[in-house]
Amino acid sequence: MASPIINGYHTEVMDSDNDESEYEFKDYYSKDKTMELRDIYIPACTQLFFRENPLKIVRSQGTYMYDQLGNKYLDCINNVAHVGHCHPYVNNQVYKQMSACATNNRYLHDNTVILAERITKTLPKGLEQIFYTNSGSEANDLAIRLAREYTGNYDILVLDNAYHGHLLSLVELSSYMYKKMTNQQKMPEHVHVVPTPDVYRGKFRDIDYNNDEVKLCQLYFDEVRRIVEEAESRGRHIAIFLFEPLQSCGGQIIYPKGYLRKTFDYLQSKGILCLADEVQAGFGRCGTHFWSFQSYEEDLIPDFVTLGKSMGNGFPIAALVTRRDITNKFVIDGIEYFNTYGGNPVSCRA
Amino acid sequence: MASPIINGYHTEVMDSDNDESEYEFKDYYSKDKTMELRDIYIPACTQLFFRENPLKIVRSQGTYMYDQLGNKYLDCINNVAHVGHCHPYVNNQVYKQMSACATNNRYLHDNTVILAERITKTLPKGLEQIFYTNSGSEANDLAIRLAREYTGNYDILVLDNAYHGHLLSLVELSSYMYKKMTNQQKMPEHVHVVPTPDVYRGKFRDIDYNNDEVKLCQLYFDEVRRIVEEAESRGRHIAIFLFEPLQSCGGQIIYPKGYLRKTFDYLQSKGILCLADEVQAGFGRCGTHFWSFQSYEEDLIPDFVTLGKSMGNGFPIAALVTRRDITNKFVIDGIEYFNTYGGNPVSCRA
Repeated sequence: MASPIINGYHTEVMDSDNDESEYEFKDYYSKDKTMELRDIYIPACTQLFFRENPLKIVRSQGTYMYDQLGNKYLDCINNVAHVGHCHPYVNNQVYKQMSACATNNRYLHDNTVILAERITKTLPKGLEQIFYTNSGSEANDLAIRLAREYTGNYDILVLDNAYHGHLLSLVELSSYMYKKMTNQQKMPEHVHVVPTPDVYRGKFRDIDYNNDEVKLCQLYFDEVRRIVEEAESRGRHIAIFLFEPLQSCGGQIIYPKGYLRKTFDYLQSKGILCLADEVQAGFGRCGTHFWSFQSYEEDLIPDFVTLGKSMGNGFPIAALVTRRDITNKFVIDGIEYFNTYGGNPVSCRA
Repeated sequence: MASPIINGYHTEVMDSDNDESEYEFKDYYSKDKTMELRDIYIPACTQLFFRENPLKIVRSQGTYMYDQLGNKYLDCINNVAHVGHCHPYVNNQVYKQMSACATNNRYLHDNTVILAERITKTLPKGLEQIFYTNSGSEANDLAIRLAREYTGNYDILVLDNAYHGHLLSLVELSSYMYKKMTNQQKMPEHVHVVPTPDVYRGKFRDIDYNNDEVKLCQLYFDEVRRIVEEAESRGRHIAIFLFEPLQSCGGQIIYPKGYLRKTFDYLQSKGILCLADEVQAGFGRCGTHFWSFQSYEEDLIPDFVTLGKSMGNGFPIAALVTRRDITNKFVIDGIEYFNTYGGNPVSCRA
């Protein structure tokens, strides 16, 4: 796990090992040549930042990125470099582990369990079993499999404008993405969308309700109940509710206090599992708490938490944490989960 | 890309940088303690090799792995360490890139296009556009999205006993895995399964047909045509045919000569796209050719090729290669594909 301590005991490593001049890299191609080759080989639907004049970044350290001419940019938008670009402590650890042993998780390895122990200690009691994956998308996809197996239900409840990943199973429930597609007018039958509790631009707004947070919370919660009841009246059965505790791509939305509590209580009492997607906002990014769902009420207990992006400071690692009785359903049903890279010793050390 | 040259010009790096004693790692826990912690934190459905007495591997170099007592094992089953465990050339490259710049692929970067150029040069002309992903599963999942968008069809054709990955979209078409699950008797409606052309244990066997490879090829191909025609007569429309050129989990099957040619000609003439899943067998593993589909006939041209596992010698990277007219369909339809880690400069350098 990327250590969150930047200015503490790791700085000695930073000072001694981080001679920047060592990492001045040869720039193989001119920027025009890189763009030309990219046009040939990289599909145009994988877009660059800055359409008019995209940046060619050749070096990044701490909070800065540098282009091929040596221009320095303060990076305010990066979604991965959690403890600063190219933190030498993380990189040294990855290098050491890659040099010692890099294999798959069908062997015993200490890093696998050490990381699991450290992560689960930051989470509510009961959330103690961890699946390692390579991306937040893989973690969300796996959670849906588990929830369906555990509940016997198939359907999925999400917030409007959600983004939960790029896989087939997730695109169809990420209305943020789904809406961008031309030929699809409505969501698939098994996906139920509730209005995002956005008191600024949402269905119910603070200016219309005199900033009454209790009232707004109730109105948005009533929407959840209405949509679940409607679905059930049509014979649909919901397995899982996925949500981003701080909706990210959808506009950095903070929900009214009490909303998640009410929603959890209602859904969990019906046997619907709740998944907090912490891929974007987790690992301390919300400031006050290590996980953003804890920033509402500290004793909220989701059934699943998914982690990603910042977890390895750039090294691909992600995870799904859940309860033992949920993972046991896979064991009982004889389902094996194997992910070639997931939980390999190098990722865990990152 | 992991360089396939082990005993050539890279050996100098190996000799100079690979002082094994440097990487003698502290073993944090006893093997019993590791197993105990694993029982707590790691779901039992993520199985270890060797159920009775699993190995605890703490170090691996070249073709050997070492357990916590220093016992040495010749590794005959590893599916990732393509140029030997912990190859120092690969590791040094990864470390250097992690130290210089590790960000996402929304910036221009030379490594992205250099790797794309090198990979596409090994493939038939026309297969020149590459999506980077974190796993073979993500690559196959994306190919299905593209094929559906491109053809307007939804259904999928696969070989029996196929394994194409662990995601929701792939489990349901990997009959190798699907059959292991208890509650599912038949495949989903949109998945059509043809008999694997296995002349040793399959539906038609060489001993019954006097080793007549032409005859066996025809019999297995007739099965493809029969199943496609049956599906079409029920109003189903197939978008894509996924296959492993050398079926791996399904038993290391080599198909009769001519089978892929006939199957490609038939399916492609109907507008069904063909995907060669090279995740397990690619990057020279079949011996004679760099890609295993080329080992049948060198001028076979799939519409998609997916790569993974051995690609980064342990570093999580995978890819989907396809034609420009297929990726253009995403562009025209306004679909964007973004993968946080996919195609980052570090992976590409690995």
